[in-house]
Amino acid sequence: MTIDRGNIVYLDNAATTMKKPYAVKREIARWINCGNAGRGSHRVALAASEKIYECRELASKLFNCKADNIIFTCNATMALNIAIKGCIQDNSHIITSDIEHNSVRRPVLKLCRENQCSRATFVSEKRERVVRNIERLIRENTGALICIHRSNITGRTNPIDEIGRLCRKKGILFIVDASQSAGNADIDMVRDNIDILCTAGHKGLYGPQGTGMMIVRDGLNIKTFLEGGSGTDSVNEEMPLYYPDRLEAGTLSTCAIAGLSEGIKFVIKNGPENIHKRECALWERCRNVLDHRKITVYDENIPGANFLFNVKGKTAAEVSAVLDKNGICTRSGLHCAPDAHNALGTMNSGAVRASFSCFTTEKEIDFFVKQVRNII
Amino acid sequence: MTIDRGNIVYLDNAATTMKKPYAVKREIARWINCGNAGRGSHRVALAASEKIYECRELASKLFNCKADNIIFTCNATMALNIAIKGCIQDNSHIITSDIEHNSVRRPVLKLCRENQCSRATFVSEKRERVVRNIERLIRENTGALICIHRSNITGRTNPIDEIGRLCRKKGILFIVDASQSAGNADIDMVRDNIDILCTAGHKGLYGPQGTGMMIVRDGLNIKTFLEGGSGTDSVNEEMPLYYPDRLEAGTLSTCAIAGLSEGIKFVIKNGPENIHKRECALWERCRNVLDHRKITVYDENIPGANFLFNVKGKTAAEVSAVLDKNGICTRSGLHCAPDAHNALGTMNSGAVRASFSCFTTEKEIDFFVKQVRNII
Repeated sequence: MTIDRGNIVYLDNAATTMKKPYAVKREIARWINCGNAGRGSHRVALAASEKIYECRELASKLFNCKADNIIFTCNATMALNIAIKGCIQDNSHIITSDIEHNSVRRPVLKLCRENQCSRATFVSEKRERVVRNIERLIRENTGALICIHRSNITGRTNPIDEIGRLCRKKGILFIVDASQSAGNADIDMVRDNIDILCTAGHKGLYGPQGTGMMIVRDGLNIKTFLEGGSGTDSVNEEMPLYYPDRLEAGTLSTCAIAGLSEGIKFVIKNGPENIHKRECALWERCRNVLDHRKITVYDENIPGANFLFNVKGKTAAEVSAVLDKNGICTRSGLHCAPDAHNALGTMNSGAVRASFSCFTTEKEIDFFVKQVRNII
Repeated sequence: MTIDRGNIVYLDNAATTMKKPYAVKREIARWINCGNAGRGSHRVALAASEKIYECRELASKLFNCKADNIIFTCNATMALNIAIKGCIQDNSHIITSDIEHNSVRRPVLKLCRENQCSRATFVSEKRERVVRNIERLIRENTGALICIHRSNITGRTNPIDEIGRLCRKKGILFIVDASQSAGNADIDMVRDNIDILCTAGHKGLYGPQGTGMMIVRDGLNIKTFLEGGSGTDSVNEEMPLYYPDRLEAGTLSTCAIAGLSEGIKFVIKNGPENIHKRECALWERCRNVLDHRKITVYDENIPGANFLFNVKGKTAAEVSAVLDKNGICTRSGLHCAPDAHNALGTMNSGAVRASFSCFTTEKEIDFFVKQVRNII
């Protein structure tokens, strides 16, 4: 299938941003023909290592963490698996929110099935109520709180600063899934008391697919997830003790990470909160002009990059299919987040998600709104 | 650091091939701005899915396996970790060869430490003796034989056809690490009785870094390694049962896999055995003109893509450093393979590895030989 991307209104940026800053593409192309970072001490391998280190430094600036504690992964799911399986003890009680993506829900449920862990979920709602919701759930054996920062289906956002403060006070490990918020929210690992931050690189950080990060706060020891070549300490039967080598087994993708560097530079330059403001404005533009009697908007008071809705009398799949015929890409269904749809009451129907990036234009939104009106 | 790759003689292709067919770069660039494969049913997501499926079909042709049983990973290490941890029972006896890379050695040793497994190694030597070597090691609880196909430091090659036949006869799971042989050896999963084939995509398959594959023979059930979004069957608390979805959690890198497709096309067109012949010829060219009294070549009767040597009276690191000064990239040390260096008797000294690809030219080899002579 060939696609003419010029005529497409792509509103599936929560799955992956399609448009990237030009420099992302340029750097990827520049680094396809390169050496293997951390393998060998010749100039070509060293250049690849330096290129990758540049990305660590940029990410450390964006999230306020130590560059060496940034572990590159191939996506956020892998980052979350390393985190969740690497530091939660057997028999632990684990708290998550009720709007998790399967990348948190499924590994946690696996720990419950196989490692005698148990899970409780707090209701993700207004800032002032969340801490109280969580406090009620804490038990003596609560080992970790893992939550999505910003929902992948609506604009709902967990107040990680408050939650982090509570976790630190109670001695509970705090793991944040920032797949949807990295790049459009202000995240500070130190200020927000985050023990492990996991994110994708190909969404709001505008890097290519094949990138993700797991970032560990200093001093936290995580069990290895992959064992293999580390380039250093090769005789050791185990992976080295030091980060990032300990958790980065095998060859990293220099070209993908070189692209991610440019995405992060772009985010730093524009400011995550400015990007968020722009996305919220696009959301409001949809919200304001669509007839409230004929469509249901979920989390209708929480603007953000994700506009989730259903047209009354139509299935979500029908609406997405008609939009697609008109060149508009949205995603209908459960968005890998049955928990979140359950919380919204859309578990059976699913919903249509139109998700924006900072490259989404007002003109595109207007065309989208027009087409939704046609469906109504 | 900026590097002028035009003036570099890159002989570290066993770590990663640097030169790729032009089409690899073209397709990566073409697919950086794309949708998320398997997520959503709009045209952009479907186009990404189709692009990825093309690569499955190409790899299935190259290795004679079912396209859906190809699991994309970010490197060979991840592929081997999924395989080794996904199908070896606790308390098993595991056989490996004595020339494994850390990507086999370390996960197997982890199973020995944590899952009461035990490991025996067979001596990798001439075809006719290997089967006898292995037969002696088989016990009642031998659960798996995992071996590297072709060494990452010399041309030594395990006869996977013979080993596969033996494993099938004895009911032992056969896992092959083809990181160094995929693309330059004839591998047929059915003929060679391979249960799981693992490989990198960025070496002899000429794809970009960030690609690898774990290929499962039909009917073999593997435990999940990553849990997360699968795009299908989202309500399920576990990953779907069917391949590839079962083992591919999270977003795949469409652009990297699009590049890998072109690398595999290139390999199919040229023929893995022709590529191997060419690499052997380059090896012979080195071997024949270097003064045997002044350098030691390891596995000196086994030509291949890896020319491993030491200059008498010099350390490996010294030699590599001088070569690097002259624009020649080789890798010295243990190459993440202490077992293999142990087998060769170079555990303490390490050795210099000059490794070729099908793009390495005679002119480059002659320049390399000249510089080694200067060092002598």
